[in-house]
Amino acid sequence: MALQLFELVGTDDDRPFSPFCWRTRMALAHKGLEATSTPWRFTEKDAIAAHQSEKVPVLLDGDRALNDSWAIATYLEDTYPDRPSLFGGDGGRAMARMINWWGDTVVIAGMFPMIVADIHGHLAPADQAYFRQSREARFKKTLEEISSTRDRDVVAFRKSLDPVRLTLKTQPYLGGAAPNYADYIVFGPFQWARAISSFQLLQADDLMHAWRDRMLDAFDGMARRSTGYDV
Amino acid sequence: MALQLFELVGTDDDRPFSPFCWRTRMALAHKGLEATSTPWRFTEKDAIAAHQSEKVPVLLDGDRALNDSWAIATYLEDTYPDRPSLFGGDGGRAMARMINWWGDTVVIAGMFPMIVADIHGHLAPADQAYFRQSREARFKKTLEEISSTRDRDVVAFRKSLDPVRLTLKTQPYLGGAAPNYADYIVFGPFQWARAISSFQLLQADDLMHAWRDRMLDAFDGMARRSTGYDV
Repeated sequence: MALQLFELVGTDDDRPFSPFCWRTRMALAHKGLEATSTPWRFTEKDAIAAHQSEKVPVLLDGDRALNDSWAIATYLEDTYPDRPSLFGGDGGRAMARMINWWGDTVVIAGMFPMIVADIHGHLAPADQAYFRQSREARFKKTLEEISSTRDRDVVAFRKSLDPVRLTLKTQPYLGGAAPNYADYIVFGPFQWARAISSFQLLQADDLMHAWRDRMLDAFDGMARRSTGYDV
Repeated sequence: MALQLFELVGTDDDRPFSPFCWRTRMALAHKGLEATSTPWRFTEKDAIAAHQSEKVPVLLDGDRALNDSWAIATYLEDTYPDRPSLFGGDGGRAMARMINWWGDTVVIAGMFPMIVADIHGHLAPADQAYFRQSREARFKKTLEEISSTRDRDVVAFRKSLDPVRLTLKTQPYLGGAAPNYADYIVFGPFQWARAISSFQLLQADDLMHAWRDRMLDAFDGMARRSTGYDV
């Protein structure tokens, strides 16, 4: 069994930064599965076209090709049931579907405007052109304009994280006593930001800051060893 | 085993309207437990003081008194483990803790300003005075001022429900194939609004509108039979 994960990078091969790829990487570690990492860039569509995807993560498991971080998580849970559970039962799997959408629409969508210019700064020229053109078309603003209000935007962003913060008052992880996929859903975006931005998303005395530290330390510090900014 | 649930009402005994009490009532039905309902009003603090609570729900189970809807849900799960599970396993219980905070901080907090004047309209004079004074002190506005922007506020409120709406694209309930406590967390607030307000929170073609209909039909139409507005 050989696992191979295509992960988004920019200029540096050792700075994978996709929030979705990080969800998958944490899920693989949770399952105790080793995967070789293949750096992939925005403009390398040809490299994954054979696997019926235009985006990463793409996970190859023997002769199977999977894409989409949620689909990969459920695949890993079903294919490796004897390894530690990502969801902690059927109820957890169903609820994680909603937490995943919360992660996408609140955490990732909330974080993106604040770090979009920093992402651009870590891309090679061909990727920079693609990224600027596609994202500026979506927002109808320049990347610099999108990020220009982040000192103000971060206040509402932090407030939007209250459901996580309040949960952490009575349990150390969203998954309960130990982390599970619910944690990786939310951590993925923070590792995305950490890889490419020095902007301080969380205040030092925030319970979520301590939680993020624990996630960085998980799996022998796997996420912390990945190149990024310590903020 | 005799179960007794104190439920918030206003002028009408048959119009229980607390979102938290409705979470508990749905949880009891899920467990197949019968409970007598005792109507309780905001100013009847004495009636529950003996049970160490100033708020409802209060659930009496034999000689035990429980309060707080989340604590009651976990109590029911632990005390009646052979009946249908509210959480679908340990993962679901842990994740439901976060969904409960999301329900409180996004759904209930988002809905409250839009229906606060309608709540007042369904209270008896003594409760009206208590409610107006305590809520206006909290918001530093009159109840009527708080509700005055609801036609505009509802747009952002509906958008804030995207994590639920998107989940319902691929599964009929937050709990998966069948409803569980995750659904009751979110439904409780809608039943709160339905009891006392004719304001249209959900558009008719919204996936959540159909989901709410299914919740109203659950347990032989228990929630739908409770007095309210059909919007």
